[in-house]
Amino acid sequence: MSTIPLNLLKSSNPPIIPLPFDANQPPTIRLYPFSRNEISTKAQQPEEDASVEERLLRLKNHYEQHGMRRFCEGVMLCHEHNHPHVMLLQIANSFHKLPGGWLRHDEPEIEGFQRVLDELFEPEGTQTSTKKWEIGDTLGQWWRPNFETSLYPYLPVHVTRPKECKKMYIIPLPQQKVIAVPKNLKFLAIPFYELYENAQAYGPQLAALPHYLARYNFEYV
Amino acid sequence: MSTIPLNLLKSSNPPIIPLPFDANQPPTIRLYPFSRNEISTKAQQPEEDASVEERLLRLKNHYEQHGMRRFCEGVMLCHEHNHPHVMLLQIANSFHKLPGGWLRHDEPEIEGFQRVLDELFEPEGTQTSTKKWEIGDTLGQWWRPNFETSLYPYLPVHVTRPKECKKMYIIPLPQQKVIAVPKNLKFLAIPFYELYENAQAYGPQLAALPHYLARYNFEYV
Ligand SMILES: [Zn+2]
Ligand SMILES: [Zn+2]
Ligand SMILES: [Zn+2]
Ligand SMILES: [Zn+2]
Repeated sequence: MSTIPLNLLKSSNPPIIPLPFDANQPPTIRLYPFSRNEISTKAQQPEEDASVEERLLRLKNHYEQHGMRRFCEGVMLCHEHNHPHVMLLQIANSFHKLPGGWLRHDEPEIEGFQRVLDELFEPEGTQTSTKKWEIGDTLGQWWRPNFETSLYPYLPVHVTRPKECKKMYIIPLPQQKVIAVPKNLKFLAIPFYELYENAQAYGPQLAALPHYLARYNFEYV
Repeated sequence: MSTIPLNLLKSSNPPIIPLPFDANQPPTIRLYPFSRNEISTKAQQPEEDASVEERLLRLKNHYEQHGMRRFCEGVMLCHEHNHPHVMLLQIANSFHKLPGGWLRHDEPEIEGFQRVLDELFEPEGTQTSTKKWEIGDTLGQWWRPNFETSLYPYLPVHVTRPKECKKMYIIPLPQQKVIAVPKNLKFLAIPFYELYENAQAYGPQLAALPHYLARYNFEYV
């Protein structure tokens, strides 16, 4: 019952294939090499806040006027030699992050996230008529209970007024769009084995990405 | 736009409710206190293998005859004071595990897992006509690349013949069944905050459960 056609088997000792083991799972995700995307660069994009303090102050101002802030991040996957990789933005050769940003208090979730991705990746001088980003499944949420840097993958006990919710979604690749990366950022494919259990280098959120994706099966094209 | 009826608001300073933030997410999970389940005990259940070596040898024998072994585990959730808890079996006042077990090589996935849960929890003397376990979404998979104790939440690079795949599924509670716990085991509700970042006490798989569940919103009844 091998799924590999007999004439393509490389081994004279083919594996024994067990009964199916894919019930109650989401559809298999097809991964391509990142080179399948159309990539360009654009002018550098300034960081919005000069310091952590400024960032938390801006969050506090938003919270007082509009309530909990909504933050959206995209998980773009590709493969190299049949191992899944996540696309991360690297700033100043050190800090890594997922592409994303804050929603405005008065914009709906999906449209707002599409605007955030456009501001980050739309080539300069693009007309507003380009294709919209396709937004996939939610992978997980992180909660900020206080005006502090700590985030949790659940709402901590007795917290009824979180200050921010950060949501990660799959962004399928390739999209029918050019991805223009700001010159001050690097856009790097990081393998799962590099992220896994490596909170020291990538922080707890990025190190947990292999867990968030462990309910999917991948197919390498 | 608060979702709490005005007459139930406990604060004279109600929070500002942001626009919806639940797109592309699975349905909200309703959690009940564990006391909503009908629980009993039954005779003690021997551990299948006396040692890790014996366990790995049995895996090896299975792999050579039938190919990759399929292992199923159930994540049963409840709440205490509105914080989610996972039900874990504790053996000999130390080691914790999720309820689960190996599938036979010739049984289909869902029926096999229902048999595993029945063997573990079915009260003694129950007729085979009782209701079947309802099996929910897959939360994640863990792969065992070699006949060793290490598991990974992804298939490591260049591994084409994993020896075992362990799959976790949500088992909604309460089920219309009595849960009979073998006398040598304790069945304990462990809060997310106790598991999170606590691989030292619970191992990497159980410590990651809050991540696996972070795409759900919970409702406490
Ligand atoms: Zn604002
Ligand atoms: Zn390689
Ligand atoms: Zn066997
Ligand atoms: Zn409490």
